[in-house]
Amino acid sequence: MYRLKDIATFIDAELIGDASIKINSLATSFNAQKDQLTYIASNKYKADLLDLKAGAVIITKDLLEDCPTNALVVDNVYLAFAQITHYFKQQPTYLDGIHTSAQINSKNIAKSCTIGAHVVIGKNCTIGTNTIIEQGVIIGNNVIIQPNVTILQNCTIGNNVFLSVGVVIGSEGFGNALDNQGHWHTIAHLGNVIIGDDVAIGANTVIDRGTLEDTQIHSGVRLDNLVHIAHNVSLGANTAIAAGVTIGGSVTLGKRCQVGGGAVIASHMCLADDVIVTGASTVDKHLNKGHYTGFTSISLHSDWKRIQMWLSKLDKITQYLNIKLKSLKGQ
Amino acid sequence: MYRLKDIATFIDAELIGDASIKINSLATSFNAQKDQLTYIASNKYKADLLDLKAGAVIITKDLLEDCPTNALVVDNVYLAFAQITHYFKQQPTYLDGIHTSAQINSKNIAKSCTIGAHVVIGKNCTIGTNTIIEQGVIIGNNVIIQPNVTILQNCTIGNNVFLSVGVVIGSEGFGNALDNQGHWHTIAHLGNVIIGDDVAIGANTVIDRGTLEDTQIHSGVRLDNLVHIAHNVSLGANTAIAAGVTIGGSVTLGKRCQVGGGAVIASHMCLADDVIVTGASTVDKHLNKGHYTGFTSISLHSDWKRIQMWLSKLDKITQYLNIKLKSLKGQ
Amino acid sequence: MYRLKDIATFIDAELIGDASIKINSLATSFNAQKDQLTYIASNKYKADLLDLKAGAVIITKDLLEDCPTNALVVDNVYLAFAQITHYFKQQPTYLDGIHTSAQINSKNIAKSCTIGAHVVIGKNCTIGTNTIIEQGVIIGNNVIIQPNVTILQNCTIGNNVFLSVGVVIGSEGFGNALDNQGHWHTIAHLGNVIIGDDVAIGANTVIDRGTLEDTQIHSGVRLDNLVHIAHNVSLGANTAIAAGVTIGGSVTLGKRCQVGGGAVIASHMCLADDVIVTGASTVDKHLNKGHYTGFTSISLHSDWKRIQMWLSKLDKITQYLNIKLKSLKGQ
Repeated sequence: MYRLKDIATFIDAELIGDASIKINSLATSFNAQKDQLTYIASNKYKADLLDLKAGAVIITKDLLEDCPTNALVVDNVYLAFAQITHYFKQQPTYLDGIHTSAQINSKNIAKSCTIGAHVVIGKNCTIGTNTIIEQGVIIGNNVIIQPNVTILQNCTIGNNVFLSVGVVIGSEGFGNALDNQGHWHTIAHLGNVIIGDDVAIGANTVIDRGTLEDTQIHSGVRLDNLVHIAHNVSLGANTAIAAGVTIGGSVTLGKRCQVGGGAVIASHMCLADDVIVTGASTVDKHLNKGHYTGFTSISLHSDWKRIQMWLSKLDKITQYLNIKLKSLKGQ
Repeated sequence: MYRLKDIATFIDAELIGDASIKINSLATSFNAQKDQLTYIASNKYKADLLDLKAGAVIITKDLLEDCPTNALVVDNVYLAFAQITHYFKQQPTYLDGIHTSAQINSKNIAKSCTIGAHVVIGKNCTIGTNTIIEQGVIIGNNVIIQPNVTILQNCTIGNNVFLSVGVVIGSEGFGNALDNQGHWHTIAHLGNVIIGDDVAIGANTVIDRGTLEDTQIHSGVRLDNLVHIAHNVSLGANTAIAAGVTIGGSVTLGKRCQVGGGAVIASHMCLADDVIVTGASTVDKHLNKGHYTGFTSISLHSDWKRIQMWLSKLDKITQYLNIKLKSLKGQ
Repeated sequence: MYRLKDIATFIDAELIGDASIKINSLATSFNAQKDQLTYIASNKYKADLLDLKAGAVIITKDLLEDCPTNALVVDNVYLAFAQITHYFKQQPTYLDGIHTSAQINSKNIAKSCTIGAHVVIGKNCTIGTNTIIEQGVIIGNNVIIQPNVTILQNCTIGNNVFLSVGVVIGSEGFGNALDNQGHWHTIAHLGNVIIGDDVAIGANTVIDRGTLEDTQIHSGVRLDNLVHIAHNVSLGANTAIAAGVTIGGSVTLGKRCQVGGGAVIASHMCLADDVIVTGASTVDKHLNKGHYTGFTSISLHSDWKRIQMWLSKLDKITQYLNIKLKSLKGQ
């Protein structure tokens, strides 16, 4: 908890309003309550000020006259947000061994595991060699965790979950703010990862925690090996994602989606329920229910070179043809 | 070992034939012998019934009249197969330390390694810090295993092999059967990974075990970092695969193939000997000997937008031109 | 250190010149000094002989007359180079625990860490559970290393660096020479990885060491999860690379570049300062400052099939149209 005046000092902001209010945490502009601080990154989101219930908001000067709550005025809102996240980040303690406050209701736990403070592990779980479970993690019943898995602080795992070797759950999201000098400032990710029941996750797959809210892997999801799930992603129930898929930040997939291996889904895309994406495709649009594909079929290298040459001129070819056809018509 | 009547109970099947026969293991329809159970997933594979030597087969009712052996009749064959695999899966014991039954003929073994029951390690091997070798793994001579490698149960490693940091060998394949409610049921993978001699494998690369038979990495293969090799894949001798490649299930590559970084090879594709695939290509066809490529060359974003617009209309452009040309001809 | 005559024996070369000179290390033809050995892989690089300052050079017979220094003459230069690299490779000792010669100036070090000989760790660092730091690694101040990270021998990490779970720094590059029988011979990588200040690296990302010189990650760089950085790559200051990107060997990126998730950059490409590459693009050209894209947009599978059919015929379509237009003109 910080007083708003302390936060203003931390991020070097001009404070307009009640400097004494207490800020317990950060939240998105939609969800922020009286004890929370939020931010409006640009004038594009000006309308969000209307329903704002936050105790305070980081904004630029030009939004001040429409601001219904206490304001922290800065030049670079996103940068100020990045800076303040670190004050609300709980630093994990890299202890070794099993913390005395951990509640472990299963016997099949490798002695080489590291289990942090206040971890809860349900019944009939198996936890493999060298696995690391940080403080505050909650694990359900009948969970099998293979060796070398790392679950970072405060994430939640449901029942009947299977985590393969080398899985990382709750890593920091890839969020960075640029300053005027072109330097990146890391955003500390304050959300967690919430994994439902009956989920299976493949080897060396990584799931980042959310920025302010949680990354969500709903029940019945299947993830293959070497998959990247970025911050704030939500995967609907029974969605299956094959190996080597890269899913960008804040992507939403509906229920029963199937994504083939090596596909890339750009940040902020929304896929409805029952979307099928062929492997190796690039999803650069929101998608309704259906089967979608997007890649260049393989061909002999010599053919491909000619095709790519014409492809790069497709624009000019169509122009040229239009002119030709017109001139022929006019003959 | 189970009696066929027990298996019928496990998967809730109607048993037609000799309920008392012993089933020792599962096998593909091509290879299954008298003490083995197999399955025919759909009518498409009806012809496989002709030469079937299996002790029993899981089928649907409509294949029953052509079935030459004992039958387990179910509605959803693939789901029943998924369920029964778990009864034949050996659960690893996640011990810590080095099991007394392990035969280790090398001295340069880090003390932090975990080595399971009946593991055999040849001469002149080096095994790095925190590496985990599960029960039944066989490792040849002159093998260098870097830190943090995990080799799961019963896999085999030849001579002169190099495994880089974080390699995972023998993880579960990505095979799942859907039930009527749209829930996935994991298939337990009963095959192993067999790695030949003189193989080198890059950091954080993952090789899944086979479903019923073995994933095979033949002698002289080179794999770079962060490569995914799915279940049942076979890589021919001296094939080289660069970083970030995703190879789907049951893919076969011949000898001396070269696959560039970031390529994706769809499940079930067959590549002959001496196939070269340019990096970033998507292999969606079987390929004979030759050099193949398939991706969109990079261009200025503004050019690309126009090209993609015309590309998405290529179908209509060609139609329009045909009509235009005909009408011009008719002038 | 070896005498040149010893090296000639190791690689079965004909020695022309002073057999007694001492060779301390290997170097590129541009940088090699009197106590160093280099190689000229093919006649294409014949001009490099002109300014050669190396103590000796591995060449083929036909370059001998232009050779200004001691020569080791072989049939397959690249293969001979691959073989000799192993004689100059320092084999790490996979000890467990913390070596007495390590200088550790921070307290927050997990007991399960392995820290090699002559490692230096600066002030105010945190090093997570099971992390492995090999001999000769230098780490600056205020560095946070999460669990399960592996930093291989002699790499250097600057100040204020953040390494996420499962990061591998200093793995062997993917360099292999073919012999006449089609067998690959691994090149031992003798360079290191040098990481500047204020760098953050995502989970399970891998950075290979250089072949003869160093892989360089300059200050302010941001790497997301599951990124592959090959040998000899140089990433300019404040460059940001999103998840699942594959960067081939000897690629150079300038300052402040941004590469979207799942992109592939082919070996030897040079990207200037301030290049932006959209995610999922394939970089197969050198790029000047600007925003570039190259992938096939996703569409309904049925549309995509038609488009790909026409695309594969683009060559023939344009030919056909040219003929048609000419014949129409001639009517």
